[in-house]
Formats: sequence, C-alpha cells, structure tokens
Amino acid sequence: MEPRVNGERLHGRLRRLAEIGATAGGGVTRLALSAEDKAGRDLLRAWMEEAGLRVAVDDLGNMTGRRPGETDEPPVLLGSHLDSVVRGGRYDGALGVLGALEVVETLADHGLRTQLPLVVVNWTNEEGVRFEPAMTCSGAVAGRFERAYVYDRTDRAGLRFEAELRRIGYLGEERPRPLPAAYLELHIEQGPVLEAAGGAVGVVGGIVGITWLEVTLEGQADHAGPSPMGSRRDALAAAARVVSGVERLARERDAVAVATVGRLVVEPNVINTIPGRATFSVDFRHPEPAVLEAQVAGLEELVAGVAAETGVRGTVRRFWTSEPTPFDPGVVGAIAGAVEDLGLPRHTLWSGAGHDAKYLAEVCPAGMVFVRSRGGLSHCEAEFSSPEDIEAGANVLLGAAIRLADAAD
Amino acid sequence: MEPRVNGERLHGRLRRLAEIGATAGGGVTRLALSAEDKAGRDLLRAWMEEAGLRVAVDDLGNMTGRRPGETDEPPVLLGSHLDSVVRGGRYDGALGVLGALEVVETLADHGLRTQLPLVVVNWTNEEGVRFEPAMTCSGAVAGRFERAYVYDRTDRAGLRFEAELRRIGYLGEERPRPLPAAYLELHIEQGPVLEAAGGAVGVVGGIVGITWLEVTLEGQADHAGPSPMGSRRDALAAAARVVSGVERLARERDAVAVATVGRLVVEPNVINTIPGRATFSVDFRHPEPAVLEAQVAGLEELVAGVAAETGVRGTVRRFWTSEPTPFDPGVVGAIAGAVEDLGLPRHTLWSGAGHDAKYLAEVCPAGMVFVRSRGGLSHCEAEFSSPEDIEAGANVLLGAAIRLADAAD
Repeated sequence: MEPRVNGERLHGRLRRLAEIGATAGGGVTRLALSAEDKAGRDLLRAWMEEAGLRVAVDDLGNMTGRRPGETDEPPVLLGSHLDSVVRGGRYDGALGVLGALEVVETLADHGLRTQLPLVVVNWTNEEGVRFEPAMTCSGAVAGRFERAYVYDRTDRAGLRFEAELRRIGYLGEERPRPLPAAYLELHIEQGPVLEAAGGAVGVVGGIVGITWLEVTLEGQADHAGPSPMGSRRDALAAAARVVSGVERLARERDAVAVATVGRLVVEPNVINTIPGRATFSVDFRHPEPAVLEAQVAGLEELVAGVAAETGVRGTVRRFWTSEPTPFDPGVVGAIAGAVEDLGLPRHTLWSGAGHDAKYLAEVCPAGMVFVRSRGGLSHCEAEFSSPEDIEAGANVLLGAAIRLADAAD
Repeated sequence: MEPRVNGERLHGRLRRLAEIGATAGGGVTRLALSAEDKAGRDLLRAWMEEAGLRVAVDDLGNMTGRRPGETDEPPVLLGSHLDSVVRGGRYDGALGVLGALEVVETLADHGLRTQLPLVVVNWTNEEGVRFEPAMTCSGAVAGRFERAYVYDRTDRAGLRFEAELRRIGYLGEERPRPLPAAYLELHIEQGPVLEAAGGAVGVVGGIVGITWLEVTLEGQADHAGPSPMGSRRDALAAAARVVSGVERLARERDAVAVATVGRLVVEPNVINTIPGRATFSVDFRHPEPAVLEAQVAGLEELVAGVAAETGVRGTVRRFWTSEPTPFDPGVVGAIAGAVEDLGLPRHTLWSGAGHDAKYLAEVCPAGMVFVRSRGGLSHCEAEFSSPEDIEAGANVLLGAAIRLADAAD
C-alpha cells in the first residue's frame, strides 16, 4: 500500500500557523518580514528541525529544509510561501509549505528514502503586498531580479527590504543556488473551476499569460442640459461600449479566456457634466500567446470602432506583459499519475494568477497541484478548503514527489 | 419704422464689462460678491444712472433700474445676472443685463414711452459657484428661499453671504417686492441647437425638468485571473450595460430627451481585481413631467434587467427633481411676435439648464430669448456669440418688451 499523509498532523499545523497574525474574521495578516512573518518562520524552522531536516536560510530569506536522498543529485524542491495579504486567508501559501513538510514527514513515518534529496522551501515575499513586486525572491533565484534590486524595495513607511530581513533575523548567507531537478507547489485554486467541476484537486497545466493595457477616450466635457444626444462626445458613454466589448472579447473567445476592466476613472466626474475623458485598464489572460495577441488586436479594433461611432478620440497603450508559462510535461505527468494512483478524477486547469512556480518553471521542470477553493474565494478571511480536499492535495503532492525523486538517474 | 437697438453701444458695454475680471484666455472670472462683482455692479449702476433710471438695491443685493411708464402698474422686468463661473465666458448673464439696459436706452433714443414701467434687473448669485445653490436671489424673490437661508450660505473659505454682500456695499434695504407684470430674460443658448438649425435667435418654450438618481451595483470583488467569465459578478461590466441603456433611453425617446451619466466610481478600482461595486449618477431632462417619470421607470427596469442578467444587486435612488417649467404662452407669444416682426426665422427650443427665469416663472408670466452659441460652448473662455446674433437677440427683447409693456391695461 502506498503511503498517505497524516491529515491530523497537517490540519493541526495549519491551525497552529493560522494563530500567528490571526484576524478577528478568521483569516490572517502575515505581511512579509513583519513580526508575524518572523513568528511563522520560527515555527516552521522548529517543525523542520523536529522532522530532522537540515535548515538553511539564504541571503533573500528563502528558508529551506533538506532531507537527503540516496544520491547527492540535485533535489526535488517542494514549497510555497508563508506571507499573506492584509486580512487574507489561512490556506494561501501556507498549504504549500506545510504540505511539503507533511510529504517528508510521511516518508519518514514509512521509512522511505527517495533517490533524490527532497527540499522543503518557504519563499520570501510572494504576495508583494508590503514590498512590490510580487514573487521577488523566487524571481531572484530564477535570475529575474538582482539581489540589490530586492534589497532596495521599500514599504509604504519607507523601510527597506534588507533592513527588515535583518531585523527579523532571516538575512542568511549568500550561497550557490544549484538548480533543483524539479519544483512542485501545492496551492489553493483561488478560483471556482474545481468547485464547478466537482473535483477536489486539479493538475495545473501552467500559468496563463497576462497583458495589461490602458485605454484613454477623449470626448468633450459639456453641460448635461443643453446638449442634445446627437451632438455629444461623451467619453463615458463611449467607455461603456468598450467595457462591454472587452467582456465579449473574452466570452466569445473560449472557456479559458478572461478579460477584466478593473479600474476606470472619469473626468471631470460631475453629476451634471458630460464626461470629457475616461481612462481605464484592461487585463487579458490566456494560456496561449497567440490568443493574447489576438485579444490585444481585438481591443484596438474595438476602440477604433467605438471612437468612429461616438466621435471620441481613443488611444490604447499596452504597458506590461507576462508570457504564458506552460509547466513541464514530465512534472505535469507525474502529478497526473499521482492523481490517478489515488483514484481521483483528473481535472486539468491553468492558473490565472502568478505563483512562485512561474519563476521556477523558467529554470527547472516545475508543476503545481491545486486544491478546490470554496466559492472560489481567496485573499479574504472567508477563504476555505475542506480538510478532505487538503488531504487529497497533499497526497497528490506526495505521490508526485515520489515519482520525481525516484525516477531520477 | 420700428426702433432698433444701438449695436455699437451694446457691444461696447459688453467689451467694457468683460475687462472686469478678465482672464488671460479671453473670458472672465467674476464670482458673486467678489471685488470683481462689485466693480461690475458699480459700472452697471453708473450706466443705469446715466440712462436716467432710478436705481435700487434690495436686501439680497438684487439691483434694479426703473424707467417709468405711462401708468404706475406693475412693471415689465428685464434682466439676468452679472456674476460668472471661474474662467467663464463674457456673454453668460452679462448679455441679459446689458441687453435689458440697451432696450430702455433705445426707447429713450426714440422718445418712446411704454404703458407699463420697465425695470432692468441684475440678480445676485445666479451661478451658485461661490455660494450654493444657484439662482438664490431670484429664488428668494419667488419665495423659494428664506432670506436667512440665503444670508447663511458660506463659500469654501467660510465667508458668509451676508457679510460679503455688506462688504462690497450692496446690502440694500428690505422692501416690498411687488410682482412684475412679466419677466423677460435674454441669454446665450449654451447649447448647439440654434447653430445646428442655422438660427440667430430662439424662442424658449420653458425650462426642462431635471431629475437626479444614484445607481449602485454590487457584485463580488475577486481576482481578475482565476475567475472564469461565466462565474463573475462584475459590477463595472454590469454598469457598462446600464450606462449604454441610459443613453438609449434618451435617444429612443424623442429629439429633446437627454440623459447623462456624469459621475461613476468603481471599487476597489484596481487593475487586477474584478470590480465589486460601481456607483453612478443619472441625470434625466425633459420638458414633460410624464416623460421624466417614464425615464425613471425605464431606468428602474433597466437596472433590474441588468442585475438579473449579471447577478449583481442593483439599487436606484432618486434624490432630486426640478419640475419642468413651461413659460407663459402670452410672453412666449410676445417673443415670437417680435421675432416675426424682425423677419427672423422662428426657432423654438427648451432650455436644458436653469436660469433666473425659472423662479420668476413660478410667480409671474415669464419668458426667455436665446442667442446662438458658437459650438454650443459656455462656462468656458471660448464662449462666443457673434455681434449680429447679439443684436438680433436684443432687438427681439426690445420688441417683446414693447408688446408686453404696451399691451397692459
């Protein structure tokens, strides 16, 4: 019989960790490099040491706990992050770190050794709420950010990342960062797809591409009274058509395309004045680069058409793109195999949000396991995944880790 | 031959008045009860005295200049206001006061007496920019506002209306306010209707009704990434449908209905978050009360429909209504007759904005003459009406005043 995780232990640790930075509404506030982050890290360090792992902290505060393998080849890395957003939930990030710890504990319980070493990791500052941008320290490991850049990040109070990392006692030694053989991350879905499909866990195909644009529509501000409808150049009326068009672009594309107008500002924004200007953001996401490009082209065509219809002047500025990141087929296959071994239905989906696995996937084979989120909610106190789903996810992580760590040469 | 106004004198006075509070861009800033307002009033007083009028100032600062008639019956009142908005134009208000003065000067030039006395009036604080609300002092004369209420208005610096009125020397005596036989106001159109129709002047049928509503749509704020389009409750996507629907309500009603969403606020208004709430204003205007009510009903139906389609919760709150004010048929007829006498094409239109004539119309027969506005623009430095159009408008005012002042018993 295959080993299974100890659900009681995992749930107990999730509950214990959620006491650190607990909010009145049942969530947590554990911002990166805060006193609460330090307390969470101290607890993790104690658990890793109790589990016999060799704990190390690098010069970015990334914490690792190593379990030796039969060989000294590059390890399989498993983890996520312990920092949270303000009034976030107790599962986001925490599940991936404690799930990884549970995997190595379960192997120890069963006296099992893997060919490759296993390393549990807690990445620093995944959320990017206190120090922007997000995923700075997995990004630095993947070569996306220089250490000096990360150190110079400041929070709203002007406190520097480096000083805060030193203050909480987690500024470790610079060390070579050998690439792992593979990276696995267990995470809550943060969306409603698995719930709608009736699945406890999902195999993640990759992280979608994202592109951000800003649309500006300039009409003519004027009195709301004396201008007949036919002679207006109302920037908000034009924007409304574009917003509806953006929604249609996603709905008519396919089931995975999403498009969001999250921010919209009207000028002068006065009740009895026809709006002279509307400025708004467009966020397109899709697994395929070609589809992202087609959405951008669709937006440009849409804005040009609305501008022609309404007499406003429209401009579209694309200012940021994160390319889609498909996960490694070998890692995805190992996760899918573990799902099958457990007799669970296989649901494959893409992640619409960024995760540390995105940066890791740029430098090593990587993959993710998703656990069903109730109501699709996350980044809020109501975030919830059931104990059964969490155990299922941790068992998939365990099975995939065994496959990847044993299959190495 | 009928008398005609002296265009040179009228244009000269408009230019001279526009020097007071002149802005770099060719407009004026002459806020109510400011030093510039005082200078403008002093100049008007001097001109009225030169013209032989008996000048009086009431306890609200309303200035009148009386020319006796053959009888001592209630007078025909003609005027508008000398205050302006910030960086406003040189015609708004000023044209109506100086046009009225030109009417009595022209009668004197021609040695003509009217049966009824004629009174030129400059209403205090029509714009309401410094002291809200607008049209406070014509409103007080019409019994809409108590004197104490007007006196207690404060500007942004906390200065009281009464103190400022005393400071500039225009706090006059309380006096009985006998109702005039009729009120006539010459004003720039502030809209593009006459320009589009190719008309120099317009006969105003009345002041449209206005109703203001606030619509709130509550959806569910969520990450822009992990939520498929079909499971979103996007408050802004829903608002876009309502904004487009509001535009359709006006366009499909008739040629004079207007509807404006001037103000819209999105929460949390973040690029990568699905909007959880959108709050926006709706301004409906129409000459007919029944149509205004139908538009409100149409909006409620629209919001309910969009809420049902999109899963958001919609509420509509109607918080202010100004009833339509049709002008007196006798006064409108006198204006139309004057237009005809001048051989001008007759264009009838409603005013989409409020004017002092609105309040006067509640207590005596009233009417307005509009002069074509270039580009429909007003409340800006680019506000312009041609000298020819201004003369045409003043001659219509003259002709209507003669008809109304001579026709009295």
